[in-house]
Amino acid sequence: MTKRVYNFNAGPSTMPLAALERAQAELLDFQGTGMSIMEHSHRAKHYEAVHDEAIKLIIELLAIPDTHQVLFMTGGASAQFAILPMNLRTDESAGDYIITGTWAEKAYQEAKIVGKPSVAWDGKKGEIWDSLPKQSDLKLSANAPYVHFTTNNTIMGTQFFDFPDSGNVPLVADMSSDIMWRPIDVSKFGMIYAGAQKNIGPAGVTVVIIRKDLIEKGRKDLAKAFRYSEVAKNNSLQNTIPTFPVYMIRNVLAVVKEEGGLAATEKKNRKKGEILYSAVDGSGGFYRCPVEKSARSVMNAVFRLPSEELEEKFVKAASAAGMVGLKGHRSVGGIRASMYNALSIEAVEKLAELMAKFQKENG
Amino acid sequence: MTKRVYNFNAGPSTMPLAALERAQAELLDFQGTGMSIMEHSHRAKHYEAVHDEAIKLIIELLAIPDTHQVLFMTGGASAQFAILPMNLRTDESAGDYIITGTWAEKAYQEAKIVGKPSVAWDGKKGEIWDSLPKQSDLKLSANAPYVHFTTNNTIMGTQFFDFPDSGNVPLVADMSSDIMWRPIDVSKFGMIYAGAQKNIGPAGVTVVIIRKDLIEKGRKDLAKAFRYSEVAKNNSLQNTIPTFPVYMIRNVLAVVKEEGGLAATEKKNRKKGEILYSAVDGSGGFYRCPVEKSARSVMNAVFRLPSEELEEKFVKAASAAGMVGLKGHRSVGGIRASMYNALSIEAVEKLAELMAKFQKENG
Repeated sequence: MTKRVYNFNAGPSTMPLAALERAQAELLDFQGTGMSIMEHSHRAKHYEAVHDEAIKLIIELLAIPDTHQVLFMTGGASAQFAILPMNLRTDESAGDYIITGTWAEKAYQEAKIVGKPSVAWDGKKGEIWDSLPKQSDLKLSANAPYVHFTTNNTIMGTQFFDFPDSGNVPLVADMSSDIMWRPIDVSKFGMIYAGAQKNIGPAGVTVVIIRKDLIEKGRKDLAKAFRYSEVAKNNSLQNTIPTFPVYMIRNVLAVVKEEGGLAATEKKNRKKGEILYSAVDGSGGFYRCPVEKSARSVMNAVFRLPSEELEEKFVKAASAAGMVGLKGHRSVGGIRASMYNALSIEAVEKLAELMAKFQKENG
Repeated sequence: MTKRVYNFNAGPSTMPLAALERAQAELLDFQGTGMSIMEHSHRAKHYEAVHDEAIKLIIELLAIPDTHQVLFMTGGASAQFAILPMNLRTDESAGDYIITGTWAEKAYQEAKIVGKPSVAWDGKKGEIWDSLPKQSDLKLSANAPYVHFTTNNTIMGTQFFDFPDSGNVPLVADMSSDIMWRPIDVSKFGMIYAGAQKNIGPAGVTVVIIRKDLIEKGRKDLAKAFRYSEVAKNNSLQNTIPTFPVYMIRNVLAVVKEEGGLAATEKKNRKKGEILYSAVDGSGGFYRCPVEKSARSVMNAVFRLPSEELEEKFVKAASAAGMVGLKGHRSVGGIRASMYNALSIEAVEKLAELMAKFQKENG
């Protein structure tokens, strides 16, 4: 039997075993065609069926209304940090940015190179962000082309459970680390984008869900390779798309649907969050979460131990018990347990058990 | 046993069976780590070793001198059509373009949006290009930031066997459809770029081989996501890279090395070209190659039959005999046999046999 660990990686991260097994079974001969899905033309019917099914699953699982279109692009969220203002900025503004973490700040910095963005809120304290803004904290301008925010801050361990109200200004969200963790009302967003490599697939594809009127509004003074309108017009097939990563998104989302869709996914994710944060809060201060309670992410739980030495020892003990990827991001240290959609409840139960045992032995 | 067809796809295209089998064997558990290579962090040692090995194999197989660096980027050659002038244009010029086919023209059109390129040569006749320029045909400017050309024209079936001489101006080549088909002198190039999905891997990664002084010269007025200097500084790991496509490049190139490197690859490719074009030329005009003899591509052989009806019948007969992907590009019609590195000599022999048989029955 294949050995599998409990994978708490922050991304690329754990994927559903069934999605990988499906890929393995047909890797040399896709549906009796005598070739791998990697060897199929992106313009031939076998790949096209996979492509269309992947898009359909995203639409279905997120209940995306007909006002929006799903695009596949490349370069990860980091490329969107530039492509978004390249397309949607006006001469006066490249958007209002809500800065709640490392990636939100990077998005703002790229926009500053491309155009003239404004800061709607910045919660930085020293080198970290440990909270999220209230609606009344936001400095929004009525004529910004969009308001940008990051729904889940992978490094800081914070997550928006209620979204900012941007009024008539399109709301744009980087959901790279929590897309599809639960059902949402997509109609509230002008655009959602996400690198696939956390909740919905492997690295290599960026999913962009964009309102059709914004596609049309996109600037025409930028290279066609980066125009949302070109990608939309060609159903993301204007040139050769990363076919295998799209195929894996299809495999992953087919499993998500099979297991009950996003309602079931949310239930599972909330359960994992409860187990983990209960273990932290019930430790009498041995484990300590640096984040405000209301902003604690169910995707990336960050916590500290009494010393860096103990943190290092904890990571080693976890590894010995088959739990990997728990070291915090190099910029903040500590422990980070990433609990993306595909991570089992069992994995978090095992982690909580280890936390109790480790405290008993080292507390 | 797994069924495998003879795959003449123009890209994505056939890959070495051993490279796919290796991926299949370890898809669920990479090197005893208990997770797929897709589930590994791009910053952890297992992926990093793969990443570095892929780069090392490219350097070794192409004998790339220390003056150049290998980068992995995304968006295919089409994204480079924009990224190249975004980085290397001057205020006066976005390069001299040698236009020998559909993709070369697209590269020029993108450069025109980004800056002010010039046409060094354009061989378009109606809707097609059937020849390549001689050195004396080229209108080159001494102070262009680069001269751009396309080494192999996938749709038109033409290929440069001798490269243009750009003097002191850096020569930039789109080698998407013939990179690594034979050894070349990389020192002659300022930059080489190629989508991986024809000769060296699956879709999803663009290989960029660039002279280090050009990296430094790159403009600083563009978003960091598209700066060669940012990618170079971070060894292509400035953000999450498409890890699985890079892993597959590693697998493919390990096979190429095992089989004797690019000298052996060239021998195999020339043999396939000889078999195919002999079958065309020996048919007494039943099969007809529209391309000048000296410019005939050994990667993509295009030929016509006496009528479109016969061409359609031929594609069907080939398919029935286990040969797929032979239909010409939708813009030009006819037959196209793509014979990339991984295609066996046996496949082309079978095709030549079919051509003889088909002519006997329909000639």
